[in-house]
Amino acid sequence: MDYREVETTAEYVASLETGADWRAEIESLADDVEADAAWFTALGAVQDAELWFYDQDECEYYPIEFDEPLEVAGCVGNVSLLDDDRFAHTHAVLSDDEGTTYAGHLNEATVWAGEVHMRVFEEPLEREYDETTELDLWL
Amino acid sequence: MDYREVETTAEYVASLETGADWRAEIESLADDVEADAAWFTALGAVQDAELWFYDQDECEYYPIEFDEPLEVAGCVGNVSLLDDDRFAHTHAVLSDDEGTTYAGHLNEATVWAGEVHMRVFEEPLEREYDETTELDLWL
Amino acid sequence: MDYREVETTAEYVASLETGADWRAEIESLADDVEADAAWFTALGAVQDAELWFYDQDECEYYPIEFDEPLEVAGCVGNVSLLDDDRFAHTHAVLSDDEGTTYAGHLNEATVWAGEVHMRVFEEPLEREYDETTELDLWL
Repeated sequence: MDYREVETTAEYVASLETGADWRAEIESLADDVEADAAWFTALGAVQDAELWFYDQDECEYYPIEFDEPLEVAGCVGNVSLLDDDRFAHTHAVLSDDEGTTYAGHLNEATVWAGEVHMRVFEEPLEREYDETTELDLWL
Repeated sequence: MDYREVETTAEYVASLETGADWRAEIESLADDVEADAAWFTALGAVQDAELWFYDQDECEYYPIEFDEPLEVAGCVGNVSLLDDDRFAHTHAVLSDDEGTTYAGHLNEATVWAGEVHMRVFEEPLEREYDETTELDLWL
Repeated sequence: MDYREVETTAEYVASLETGADWRAEIESLADDVEADAAWFTALGAVQDAELWFYDQDECEYYPIEFDEPLEVAGCVGNVSLLDDDRFAHTHAVLSDDEGTTYAGHLNEATVWAGEVHMRVFEEPLEREYDETTELDLWL
């Protein structure tokens, strides 16, 4: 296990714009406040969603698409630098009108309403290729 | 996307009372510490629950009721002022004895045990009617 | 409801080691930084998992085992002292290659990749036996 102590330089709450992309909105907040490392949690609802599942044998992501309104029952993630761009690694738990739940790595989703809390850290987190998992990981 | 920098004035951990209402307990904590804006995460278990699903076409909430013991696998939300009262907007992921999961906007639930972490912000968050979504949103 | 104001002494981000145990890694972080009270959120993926469901009638935990790769769509928990050892009370939401979700109290799981944010509090949290729920609770 690798770890690092972090210093929080600022924290924010944000309300995401209806019709925009959930993850792009979070990255836009990170860009606006020049956050090269941050941690966030969020909740809300989306009009559709694309989750990605990582196949640990093939070491590839596969998309799972949902074309219906869903609650964002929970969302947690972080901002780091990936190839010099700010990337919001975003996991989410979604639920439909019967309370049935779908969850995973959120690639994209159209915002209905979204409330985000973000803490920005002083020192950047940078993702690099990890040979074991074939994922881009930080630390 | 609208956002605001926030200053944390204090943070708390709380243990919710068995038999009380999950959301009312969080609002009671907010009242006790005079939090007009806060962010929380939580975990625990409940004896029953009522989730609300927001129908984005009808712009109305519909209840989904569960009359059985459930784990609170995760819970995230925030405190703001709604019509001058403190309101804990609470989303939760619940699970039963087979690990099957239900999730969404938590209206009420009877606490079995609950552990909460809350950060209180200096400046109030106030909910106002949003014409696009017909929800009460802040910022 | 019992609550306590807490002072954060430090905060950390951690990357969990592939092949190690998810909860043991979090407890190892707590040991390394001498955290007798902390709050964390996390995300990632695991190679297998054992969830525990608490039967509120029998007041006993029952295991639910998963022998397949799963995303950790969300994870929230806290560190406290239980019989003088640091214990990471860990809840998680897991999902498979169809987005189907399983959730609850996470006893153990083999890390594929894991990203954790932990806030360490100054004053220890100590778990003691609670007669009503037969759980070890703090405060």
